[in-house]
Amino acid sequence: MNELLLAGIYAALAAFAVCVVICPLAIPHLRRLKFGQNVRTDGPESHLKKTGTPTMGGVAIVLSIIGASLFFIKGDGRAADVLVMTASFGVIGFIDDYLKIKKKSSDGLLFMQKIIAQLIPTAYFIWRLYSSGADMSVYIPFTNIFLDLKYLTAPFIVCAVLGFVNGVNLTDGLDGLASGVTALVSIFLFFVAFAAGSKLSIVSGAAVGALLGFLLFNSHPAKVFMGDTGSLALGGLISATAIILRMPLVVALVGLIYFVESLSTMLQVGYFKLTKKLYGKGKRIFKMAPFHHHLEQCGYKETQVVAVFYIFTAVMCLIGFLATRNVF
Amino acid sequence: MNELLLAGIYAALAAFAVCVVICPLAIPHLRRLKFGQNVRTDGPESHLKKTGTPTMGGVAIVLSIIGASLFFIKGDGRAADVLVMTASFGVIGFIDDYLKIKKKSSDGLLFMQKIIAQLIPTAYFIWRLYSSGADMSVYIPFTNIFLDLKYLTAPFIVCAVLGFVNGVNLTDGLDGLASGVTALVSIFLFFVAFAAGSKLSIVSGAAVGALLGFLLFNSHPAKVFMGDTGSLALGGLISATAIILRMPLVVALVGLIYFVESLSTMLQVGYFKLTKKLYGKGKRIFKMAPFHHHLEQCGYKETQVVAVFYIFTAVMCLIGFLATRNVF
Repeated sequence: MNELLLAGIYAALAAFAVCVVICPLAIPHLRRLKFGQNVRTDGPESHLKKTGTPTMGGVAIVLSIIGASLFFIKGDGRAADVLVMTASFGVIGFIDDYLKIKKKSSDGLLFMQKIIAQLIPTAYFIWRLYSSGADMSVYIPFTNIFLDLKYLTAPFIVCAVLGFVNGVNLTDGLDGLASGVTALVSIFLFFVAFAAGSKLSIVSGAAVGALLGFLLFNSHPAKVFMGDTGSLALGGLISATAIILRMPLVVALVGLIYFVESLSTMLQVGYFKLTKKLYGKGKRIFKMAPFHHHLEQCGYKETQVVAVFYIFTAVMCLIGFLATRNVF
Repeated sequence: MNELLLAGIYAALAAFAVCVVICPLAIPHLRRLKFGQNVRTDGPESHLKKTGTPTMGGVAIVLSIIGASLFFIKGDGRAADVLVMTASFGVIGFIDDYLKIKKKSSDGLLFMQKIIAQLIPTAYFIWRLYSSGADMSVYIPFTNIFLDLKYLTAPFIVCAVLGFVNGVNLTDGLDGLASGVTALVSIFLFFVAFAAGSKLSIVSGAAVGALLGFLLFNSHPAKVFMGDTGSLALGGLISATAIILRMPLVVALVGLIYFVESLSTMLQVGYFKLTKKLYGKGKRIFKMAPFHHHLEQCGYKETQVVAVFYIFTAVMCLIGFLATRNVF
């Protein structure tokens, strides 16, 4: 069997094993932190259930991915770039999660602080790509075209990174949703990277393994949440991998759920503000945003919404392969 | 992209689409049949919930797989053999399901009738393999060895087919369990068939698509069950594909859940009968068999057991790829 394929499988199994070991060790510590925050909350029974669930489980995901990958990438610069993006966004998420706990509220970093913090690793990533003379064109799905965006390249990469990162972040709202959808997207990245002969397949493989391990504790009923630590790190990993492979548009298609979640939130907030300005009273498009909460409000169960989003993403993986049929 | 890969992806998408169309059309009809059976049942609330759920959803799975495959296999004899096995076992399952509904009880075909019925398509399958001069050796996982079983070949195939078929059948006891696990096993078969350059990858791809479509209606809370129609057909498909690819042992490893379920049932029944004979009173090893009911009795939720079995099977897929590293 191909060495690259083998390394990816070993990385996946290693990351799975590390994550399965770390999670049960970390959960009691995380719970102690989290309980400090929420012990006084008085909400409905069904919401209270989730109050005690510890967050920041993303720490386990990030450590598993980086630990398992470093063992197999053997100094590959591009793979190292992806790991740096994963770690930096993980740190930003960690600070945000930590502040939320310290302040005992749901406000961590301010919106602008968060955006500026995210621009720093993104700028470094773009510099790394430019300085190594990487091909930064973008493949247009279902065509033969790799489009050179010229002076729009850097702005496009910034939009792609922020789009993915905040998309994964918004998707992380139901038990096992962000972790499962991202596991599927990572499987897709694994195959695209493998087809391109890139060692990024090892990092994607590690992500698949780590997320499968995490899902043992994160699927309904969740014993731990990934928090911003996890969702921002995963967003960093996915966007960096997709950009290096010149496939951000195809990966956006496969991870369409992320963008449905983002778009529903933006539409909801925008429409509310607009109608408030025009009519003095804010109106809503969805019963609740992001979209997964809208579906819940429509009467679907949490596990049903998660299952449908999984299946949708699996089908989008198939369509994603078709979208690249001319280049692999 | 490779033609075989493309055909597999198209077959998966086609089967998904067909299944998603058939299921909502069939469910009201199936429910009417099923309600005739169970309207008088008086059990606990939690079980009653499942009483109204229609069975025989496997009809949709079988039709989707066969419909989508026929379009792409273009007269490939081996793929046709797999479809014949799928259809024949589906018919046996259908008769069993139908008798259960007619008799208004949980007894359909008698045990011996079921076994004899299963031997007929299996014998035809073996005859087809022999008469076409197929290589019927068996690959030993993690080695370079394809073992020729000589005069034990036919008995081995019979055991393999009956083992898989009844394993899938026993696994079908929780919402989305058999369908999800079999979707994962089918993904594995897809890649093995593809690596072997076999058109069986098209049938496996169709199975993946059909099962994803079915899972939209079968995942918790299930709106339809596959019934014996589905589980026997899927067992026929998996075992025939595995045997033709000479990989029944590797596929048994990947589908270990099927055998854990079978073995737990056999141990439970055997131990109970033995202890009854020896001590006059039957003892049990598990709280309940098959194994998934044991876990439920231990306090795990249905969705948790299903998630763990999915993740376990996904990891076994990775190990399954490692098991074939010397031959692909």
